[in-house]
Amino acid sequence: MKRKTILITGSAGFVGSHLVDRALSEGFKVIGLDNLITGSEENIRHLRNEPNFIFIEHDVTEPVVFPDDVDYIFHFASPASPKDYYALPIETMRVGSEGTYNMLNLAREKGATFMLASTSEVYGDPEVHPQQETYWGRVNPIGPRSVYDEAKRYAEAMTMAYKRLYDLDTRIVRIFNTYGPRMRLNDGRVLPNFITQALKGEPLTVYGDGSQTRSFCYVDDLIEGVWRLMMNVKYHDPVNIGNPEEVKIIDFAREILEITGSQSPIVFKPLPQDDPKRRRPDITKARQLLNWEPKVPRKEGLRRTLQYFKNKLHLYE
Amino acid sequence: MKRKTILITGSAGFVGSHLVDRALSEGFKVIGLDNLITGSEENIRHLRNEPNFIFIEHDVTEPVVFPDDVDYIFHFASPASPKDYYALPIETMRVGSEGTYNMLNLAREKGATFMLASTSEVYGDPEVHPQQETYWGRVNPIGPRSVYDEAKRYAEAMTMAYKRLYDLDTRIVRIFNTYGPRMRLNDGRVLPNFITQALKGEPLTVYGDGSQTRSFCYVDDLIEGVWRLMMNVKYHDPVNIGNPEEVKIIDFAREILEITGSQSPIVFKPLPQDDPKRRRPDITKARQLLNWEPKVPRKEGLRRTLQYFKNKLHLYE
Repeated sequence: MKRKTILITGSAGFVGSHLVDRALSEGFKVIGLDNLITGSEENIRHLRNEPNFIFIEHDVTEPVVFPDDVDYIFHFASPASPKDYYALPIETMRVGSEGTYNMLNLAREKGATFMLASTSEVYGDPEVHPQQETYWGRVNPIGPRSVYDEAKRYAEAMTMAYKRLYDLDTRIVRIFNTYGPRMRLNDGRVLPNFITQALKGEPLTVYGDGSQTRSFCYVDDLIEGVWRLMMNVKYHDPVNIGNPEEVKIIDFAREILEITGSQSPIVFKPLPQDDPKRRRPDITKARQLLNWEPKVPRKEGLRRTLQYFKNKLHLYE
Repeated sequence: MKRKTILITGSAGFVGSHLVDRALSEGFKVIGLDNLITGSEENIRHLRNEPNFIFIEHDVTEPVVFPDDVDYIFHFASPASPKDYYALPIETMRVGSEGTYNMLNLAREKGATFMLASTSEVYGDPEVHPQQETYWGRVNPIGPRSVYDEAKRYAEAMTMAYKRLYDLDTRIVRIFNTYGPRMRLNDGRVLPNFITQALKGEPLTVYGDGSQTRSFCYVDDLIEGVWRLMMNVKYHDPVNIGNPEEVKIIDFAREILEITGSQSPIVFKPLPQDDPKRRRPDITKARQLLNWEPKVPRKEGLRRTLQYFKNKLHLYE
């Protein structure tokens, strides 16, 4: 029997590359697209002799033409950390608009099922906790974060338009903070910042007083949820995938110090504009629909991530 | 002295064509772009012998190349009534994203000042009244209206990104309900609906119980505000232009019956999904910044609009 084909945009990114691994392990042929502006070939180097994986360096804001069948499209390409999308605002906006448009058109042409990687950022700085999928969000359309937030809201709107207009088989996953191996050390997010700072013996930087919370989902848990949403159901409205366990940033800094055995001090800096004070997924829908919930405890996830960071820092020091 | 050049997208539309008239009367050379999917050549037919006006039928989601200088760009192209953007969801989304992108790039290339026609729809179904520009809005990202609302929020985000990244001289006008001659009779909005129904002796359709309010700005007032924002100030954050005088839909129906002398009854239908219950501009910023406020009383504006509708209905009956 012919292998089914999965196309993954952002396949050299942190989440995208884990998705490639999963798809290959499930017996699919995988086509990976990435323009490598935030993704890294290193994340897929272990697949260089893998006969069922094809990597194409391609900017998905340009249309793609494939002769082959495509059965599933995971549209996971985008700069995703504030540091990245502040540095690449126009690229971030266009992969959300034209990138999504091109991939939706490809899905139509191929009769493929399409999944958009959306984000908890569509909720902005929410006034309700935890966030259910029915919450419309509180996003500043003209703030610095809007290049990402509004691009993803736009991408959701367009995905739903294709569902309504063409009855395309679509999925929207709203991904909350995720961590694990292949995270970029310098992406500016709190977890790689803390671990890198702790390992280097530098002060851990807490923005604001550290009372703001985050919830961190280990990447294997995320991929499991994403996979089930694509494969196990036919459900078109957005679904939150994330870990509802909240931790205060200040407590998280202390956890990192403990797990790394670092003696680094903690320093405080002013909160950046429009930084969300709190974000936590309501995963009732994922539980009911997908029988999914996160399994990897933070301690275990951090241990595995730490190992990756140690190797990387060693490589680059 | 060489005439300065203004480029107007959506130049065959209701608002765009009035803007063309204004720009010509101010002594500019005007290039009008429109793909005519909701605009109409009729709106600019009176300019066919005007030497300073060039009309180009062009879809602005495709890049444009001009040899000439361009000093100002008014990006006013978009389907703008719910009926239109439900019928043209993908076109609506892409003129907001790629159309805006192409026009911003043109503005950069030409060193032109760029204005985005945004909309009160960025406020969605607001929980504060009246709406100030600092209000972030309450928009359903996946609802049927999102193809317009999210496209315009995206366009604002991108306009601000060009301001920040390239220091482009940008303007954003948030246009509230506008009416006047050259409105489309069949655009599905309440004012053309009521007038057309009244003139034809058909029942006036009120959605819901009619207690929701609207505020209507006469097109000449709008154009005056738009013009001042472009020409008189260097201000980059969004500015509301609209009429803060609220009227309940049910009272408005009665006004239309009175002004037309129609004997039509009023009938009630269910409210459509995500229909805003109330929308009213706070125009403090426009007053302070532009010394602008609406001048045309609703009675007078309706009289002029009615005359236009009578002529049109006569033409087509």
